[in-house]
Amino acid sequence: MTTDTPRKQQIEDAASTLFRERGYAATSVRDIAHALDMQGGSLYAHVASKEDVLWAIVVRAADRFNAEVGPIAASDRTAARKLRKMIRAHVAVVTSAQKDAAVFLDEWRFLSPERRATIAARRDDYEGLFRKAIAQGVGSGEFGRIDSAQTAIVILSALNGIASWYSPDGNLTAAQIADQHADLFIRALTWAKPTDEGEDP
Amino acid sequence: MTTDTPRKQQIEDAASTLFRERGYAATSVRDIAHALDMQGGSLYAHVASKEDVLWAIVVRAADRFNAEVGPIAASDRTAARKLRKMIRAHVAVVTSAQKDAAVFLDEWRFLSPERRATIAARRDDYEGLFRKAIAQGVGSGEFGRIDSAQTAIVILSALNGIASWYSPDGNLTAAQIADQHADLFIRALTWAKPTDEGEDP
Repeated sequence: MTTDTPRKQQIEDAASTLFRERGYAATSVRDIAHALDMQGGSLYAHVASKEDVLWAIVVRAADRFNAEVGPIAASDRTAARKLRKMIRAHVAVVTSAQKDAAVFLDEWRFLSPERRATIAARRDDYEGLFRKAIAQGVGSGEFGRIDSAQTAIVILSALNGIASWYSPDGNLTAAQIADQHADLFIRALTWAKPTDEGEDP
Repeated sequence: MTTDTPRKQQIEDAASTLFRERGYAATSVRDIAHALDMQGGSLYAHVASKEDVLWAIVVRAADRFNAEVGPIAASDRTAARKLRKMIRAHVAVVTSAQKDAAVFLDEWRFLSPERRATIAARRDDYEGLFRKAIAQGVGSGEFGRIDSAQTAIVILSALNGIASWYSPDGNLTAAQIADQHADLFIRALTWAKPTDEGEDP
């Protein structure tokens, strides 16, 4: 177990890179083994199938998001403070575990139907953390009267998009990106009034 | 040409469905032919390669986005009205040509490097339409002093996310979804003041 655990993680890391670059479908077990200077056969001593590796990557990404964001969502804070901290935590996972996050977001559809259903349920629960934080703010009057379910989807779509464009060498740090998103969305939520841009002629 | 054009479109439509469901890498020319009750060989009378089909789908999606959003971006309107109409037009393409949009957004990375560079440049130009509309509003004082490049990315990430969750049978019409997004983002942009949620302890 002690020797097996790091090897398993190496396999998941190599697979995560390949799944992200080429897509799950175009990556073979042999490709993963090759990236680790292993024989295809000896890789099977550690993992039962390519889908098991995808599953391991997707689960560890889901676990990571939950571990970072869950405690904040459950904490006793005003909705705006809570949502800002949740956005920061989510962006920290997307940017620090970018490959895993990208695989989690883009490749999970290649899981078997049963596993896909498990992940769909976990994603819905996770989205629920954002729904509840937004609904808390709507209830307390901190936020305007918006659709919290729909707004949670919009926020998470934008945050997840970061996985596809973020570069550690870019102009903005992960913390700055998180704060820009938090500023934008909290402004939008805090302002209750409908927009007043007039009618289009 | 008159008989060839619709066949070509049928091929692109069938390929778009398969690329979206299985991913480009996991779809073969034979699969596309099969979906149309054709022989693999006779499909090659219409298209030179699987990548050519992907290219055709990606280009027609890019053309569609440009055709719908471009004229609005170039029109003479206040920034908020312009941005709202651009968001509506973008969402209309994402929801009415959902398969093509999803392939355009998710599978374009499987194009050859040269074609990928062409699409990357077109995507950047397209993003520029949003950047400019936002910068117009910042310049005129309609919007707060925000980073227009970064905000364009956030808005487009959220709008593109719609391709992965929209269902024509869902609770919200495409127009309602577009307006929710427009409301949220225009509120965020219109409110110049920084958020005031206090410091987190």
